[in-house]
Amino acid sequence: MRSVFPLRLVAASWIVVTGCLAASADEGMWLFNDLPRDHLKADYDFDPTDQWARHVMRASVRVNSGGSGSFVSETGLMLTNHHVGADTLHKLSTPEHNCHVDGFYAETLADEIKAPDLELSQLVAIEDVTDQVTAAVTIDMAAPEALAARRAVISRIEKESLDRTGLRGEVVALYGGAKFHLYQYKKYTDVRLVWAPESAIAYFGGDADNFEYPRYSLDACLFRAYEDDKPARTEHYFKVSERGVSEGELVFISGSPGRTQRIFTAAALEFQRDHQVPFVLNHLRRQEILFQQFGLRGDEARRRARKYLLGVENGRKACTGMLQGLQDPALLSRKRADEADVRAKVEADPKLRQYADAWEAVERIQTRRAELLEIMAGFGGQHYQIAETLVFLSAENQKPNAQRLPEYRESSRATLERQLFSPAPIHDDLECARLADALSLFVERRGGDDPLVQKVLDGKSPRERAAELIDGTALADVAFRRELAEGGRAAVEASADPLIRLALLMEPEARSHRARQDELDELETQAYARITAATYAVTGASTYPDATSTLRLSFGPVKGYVEAGQVIPPWTTVAGAFEHERTHGAKPPWRLPRSWTLNRDSLDPDTPFNFVCTADIIGGNSGSPVINRRAELVGLVFDGNLQSLPGRYSYSDDMARAVSVDSRILLESLRKVYKAQRLVDELQ
Amino acid sequence: MRSVFPLRLVAASWIVVTGCLAASADEGMWLFNDLPRDHLKADYDFDPTDQWARHVMRASVRVNSGGSGSFVSETGLMLTNHHVGADTLHKLSTPEHNCHVDGFYAETLADEIKAPDLELSQLVAIEDVTDQVTAAVTIDMAAPEALAARRAVISRIEKESLDRTGLRGEVVALYGGAKFHLYQYKKYTDVRLVWAPESAIAYFGGDADNFEYPRYSLDACLFRAYEDDKPARTEHYFKVSERGVSEGELVFISGSPGRTQRIFTAAALEFQRDHQVPFVLNHLRRQEILFQQFGLRGDEARRRARKYLLGVENGRKACTGMLQGLQDPALLSRKRADEADVRAKVEADPKLRQYADAWEAVERIQTRRAELLEIMAGFGGQHYQIAETLVFLSAENQKPNAQRLPEYRESSRATLERQLFSPAPIHDDLECARLADALSLFVERRGGDDPLVQKVLDGKSPRERAAELIDGTALADVAFRRELAEGGRAAVEASADPLIRLALLMEPEARSHRARQDELDELETQAYARITAATYAVTGASTYPDATSTLRLSFGPVKGYVEAGQVIPPWTTVAGAFEHERTHGAKPPWRLPRSWTLNRDSLDPDTPFNFVCTADIIGGNSGSPVINRRAELVGLVFDGNLQSLPGRYSYSDDMARAVSVDSRILLESLRKVYKAQRLVDELQ
Repeated sequence: MRSVFPLRLVAASWIVVTGCLAASADEGMWLFNDLPRDHLKADYDFDPTDQWARHVMRASVRVNSGGSGSFVSETGLMLTNHHVGADTLHKLSTPEHNCHVDGFYAETLADEIKAPDLELSQLVAIEDVTDQVTAAVTIDMAAPEALAARRAVISRIEKESLDRTGLRGEVVALYGGAKFHLYQYKKYTDVRLVWAPESAIAYFGGDADNFEYPRYSLDACLFRAYEDDKPARTEHYFKVSERGVSEGELVFISGSPGRTQRIFTAAALEFQRDHQVPFVLNHLRRQEILFQQFGLRGDEARRRARKYLLGVENGRKACTGMLQGLQDPALLSRKRADEADVRAKVEADPKLRQYADAWEAVERIQTRRAELLEIMAGFGGQHYQIAETLVFLSAENQKPNAQRLPEYRESSRATLERQLFSPAPIHDDLECARLADALSLFVERRGGDDPLVQKVLDGKSPRERAAELIDGTALADVAFRRELAEGGRAAVEASADPLIRLALLMEPEARSHRARQDELDELETQAYARITAATYAVTGASTYPDATSTLRLSFGPVKGYVEAGQVIPPWTTVAGAFEHERTHGAKPPWRLPRSWTLNRDSLDPDTPFNFVCTADIIGGNSGSPVINRRAELVGLVFDGNLQSLPGRYSYSDDMARAVSVDSRILLESLRKVYKAQRLVDELQ
Repeated sequence: MRSVFPLRLVAASWIVVTGCLAASADEGMWLFNDLPRDHLKADYDFDPTDQWARHVMRASVRVNSGGSGSFVSETGLMLTNHHVGADTLHKLSTPEHNCHVDGFYAETLADEIKAPDLELSQLVAIEDVTDQVTAAVTIDMAAPEALAARRAVISRIEKESLDRTGLRGEVVALYGGAKFHLYQYKKYTDVRLVWAPESAIAYFGGDADNFEYPRYSLDACLFRAYEDDKPARTEHYFKVSERGVSEGELVFISGSPGRTQRIFTAAALEFQRDHQVPFVLNHLRRQEILFQQFGLRGDEARRRARKYLLGVENGRKACTGMLQGLQDPALLSRKRADEADVRAKVEADPKLRQYADAWEAVERIQTRRAELLEIMAGFGGQHYQIAETLVFLSAENQKPNAQRLPEYRESSRATLERQLFSPAPIHDDLECARLADALSLFVERRGGDDPLVQKVLDGKSPRERAAELIDGTALADVAFRRELAEGGRAAVEASADPLIRLALLMEPEARSHRARQDELDELETQAYARITAATYAVTGASTYPDATSTLRLSFGPVKGYVEAGQVIPPWTTVAGAFEHERTHGAKPPWRLPRSWTLNRDSLDPDTPFNFVCTADIIGGNSGSPVINRRAELVGLVFDGNLQSLPGRYSYSDDMARAVSVDSRILLESLRKVYKAQRLVDELQ
């Protein structure tokens, strides 16, 4: 399961964080400082100690390319998915050695290769700062004023945390803004590639098998965190279990689920169904064709496009599943019935009537969101993104820290600069194709006679203009980027670089669009905070907040399911993988890599390969460790099945399942296929 | 060059026929009864006799699957493109023998296989009926009244033609409705497959090479027309030239170009640029992903989806090229300058002032077209189309012939029934996927809470509902279709078939949508007729009308071009094809079929393969014969290069070229690769 949405596309519009109505069965993405202890005790006779929780929390990491991971040795070894590491695998590849496709193994410590811009965030501590935040924002403020006040207090808290502890602070709004917690992270910024299998086994079955089950994917790779040029001492880590799990056994998943929208009102889900998700899907289809077409130019072009294509395919398939869920009349019927129930009780109770119009407030916001949907205030492609960041940075730096946009705050600065000054290669031919497509879309959206469109095109066709801009820019040069960043606003405004000029031209539009989005987010935060309070007052149920790309704990038993009358067992095996290859004529994407075919006889055919459990996950959980009660790593989450996709809106354990790589195939293949005894020893 | 738009999508909105401002160089798709004799005489010293013109006209045919062709023997042999014959090749394929992919050759006459529903139209005579039509429609009529009057007189003329001559009459509006000609066609309905090469050589280079040049495609196949179960005696046919053409030689192309929009006003082109073409492109991308995804299910699924996928890929690439042309500010600047010039002269001349508001009328119509664009009044898939046709047919049959929609008139009846009762296989799994996608799009367009959407979905998700509808329908059975057609409205209304019920439910919506489209078409016809008259009055230039899917003659010399400083010669050769395979690593779609590799040594490496000329063509010209002054067939049009795609809006002979299969590779490969001496003998 890969992070579903291109970050840029959703950052502003889906940023709202929310809470959920009521948990049932094994539903829930729980906060580490508020675990469902009663439920675990009652249903599973399990009592997580504070020490257990802290250990699991600190052994888990968030990966900045979008996904989760965990430490699996005391010397910094970090396990995640191949598809979470893919961004780095692509950046470390060359036309001569494609380590994404062909795999990689560092025979010795000295062979481990530094990733250009990979960053791991280890959650060290959580602090409740609700009082500070809510004291700063009062009910009588208008949205822009409230937003400014909230930003100011949050940036102050985060800055103080950084100054006080050296840890990167991040204030997270939970339960739709009813609570605010300060998350303090230790960052690992020297991260090196240790091992990755071939993409043919990591992504066995390709787009066709994605989100399907049964499955046979070794979607895993290993990195190592370094400090001071030496392997980091990671006190908290999971031992990789040789024994694995048994059917029905309780497992835990500790990772950073991206976004759920389970508290969304019916009106908000209607907007998702009729506007937002179809819009995103259209965009993804367009991107998919773009990258496919670019890849037709030849082998090297295909390699370059693949970095994006796999993510886009994944997003398209995930969104299709989500839309299927939303378009099923049953989903909204249930939501409307629940909502009507709560609202009737709120209306009936004079103490709660203050909350009564919150649902209508959300509904009004959806209409305004629909208006913003088609507005384009910037363009795709890495070069343009760099230009836009430099332009914004030069302006934000002139403001006091508390007034800056969150990503330009002091506390975010180090992360921002790592991305901005990354030496990762950027391919001009692909940039050109992406920018041409973005310019063409800009003409479609605004019409060819729009004055800004005419300025942007400068009398040329989108394709000619894109070629001119990419040919003319010097932003590929990291030193030039640093020079502009250091030169501040004056340097940026004086620059003749054509992409900087374009980003300056677009800046007012981009800022106005951002401000409108932020205002809607603020209004929605306020409305959902009231809905959360009202719902809590009515139902009395204490529950987990909607996912917010921060660390959560999910749990549930290892368990198969029945689909169309057919029993799907919880496990697949090595023998099944070879059989799966055979029944598909061993044609790509169902052709196993040579390393597997050569070593087939030495592999135990009964080794469990992938397994499913009922734990509640979503995009962003990719790479999460699956652990048992003893906090041993028994698996590695990499996907959900098709039935899990509507989980964004509501949980079900009927057929929805999380899909994981079994720890046993990980160890077996490291030994027998990849001859990586050095790593096996370290993992045990 | 394949017909660019899925017919359904454009039938109503692009049906308007128009005339062009002024021809230059070798621009022009000329009427056979109004050839540019002066131009041909002056520039090429060529004087086409009436006999020459009639011979060329009658040796040419239109293919009902969308494309052109020509007779190439006196016993009914008909040459067209592989991609024009593809619809039939797919319909004649089975999981065991895929004649689209593997090719086909009938060793004897008895081995020729009957196509299920292929139909050839041979234009026998043209008659000017302008006076009759314009007498029926007067200037004081409102649009619906004018439309009814025009329909009535046209249906009467067509019916009389059928009764009088036995030929299928079709009244064509030319020059934006300034002229009306009655085209009389002889139909060939027993058409059999004789020879087709493998798709790997017919479509060598696949989607990547499509619309590119240099090119190496044997995009050809042979059918034979039969009458009374014997090969038809075709008096008019082209001899296939062994000698081919030389550089600079004048050639003619006789075929049925689909649609050009060269007389479109600036406002109409803006609508194309900002609404229509982006809309169609989005739809094509969606279809492309749909058919790709379906094909992932396995080999047989891929075979089934391929029938549609190739056409969709082609349309997407063609539209992308057209949009590039429209989005180039230069194109609309030129159009606006020309238009301003004509309008200024019209305003200045009191005699012409009656025409002055025609441009504004067109502009107003565009706004109304934009409103109609997103309305969905039916669904994709063959089964649903059959259901809709049966429902409409039962209602139209109750009206007098003169009041029916054109496709349900007596004169069109035989063709309609051939399609409706075609025994060609329909695949339920693919139908299900297509209908599910169409239902999902319906929810997106109208919103999930729309009452009609709720009726259509009947409480299920689009996927479940599609499965239920396809499982439940009996329309796969041709006898059942006949029964319903014969039972009339009563039988249709009493039918419990779920797809018939769905089409009945949608009928009011479909009729209202059609009526709105037809009204806009009528208004646009009237406006363009006035613009044509005004332009003629101002410029005095006599010219050709915009393409209308009817037979036209184009011409120009065989001529290479210069692209990015590189000279592109007019020809490619057999040696070049093998080299093209080598430079692409012989990987599909650049892997030549085994028959070519095996026979490589016997082939003359210098045999010309494909060539380009400046003649003015567009989608629909696919399969057109390229002939010399002596009316010998020297080539077979199959594509235009990328630079030709904006030709829909304006002609250029700078780099735009028509791409053809050379007659010499056709004969060489029939002899050496396909060992089809029987056909070679017949062709010469």
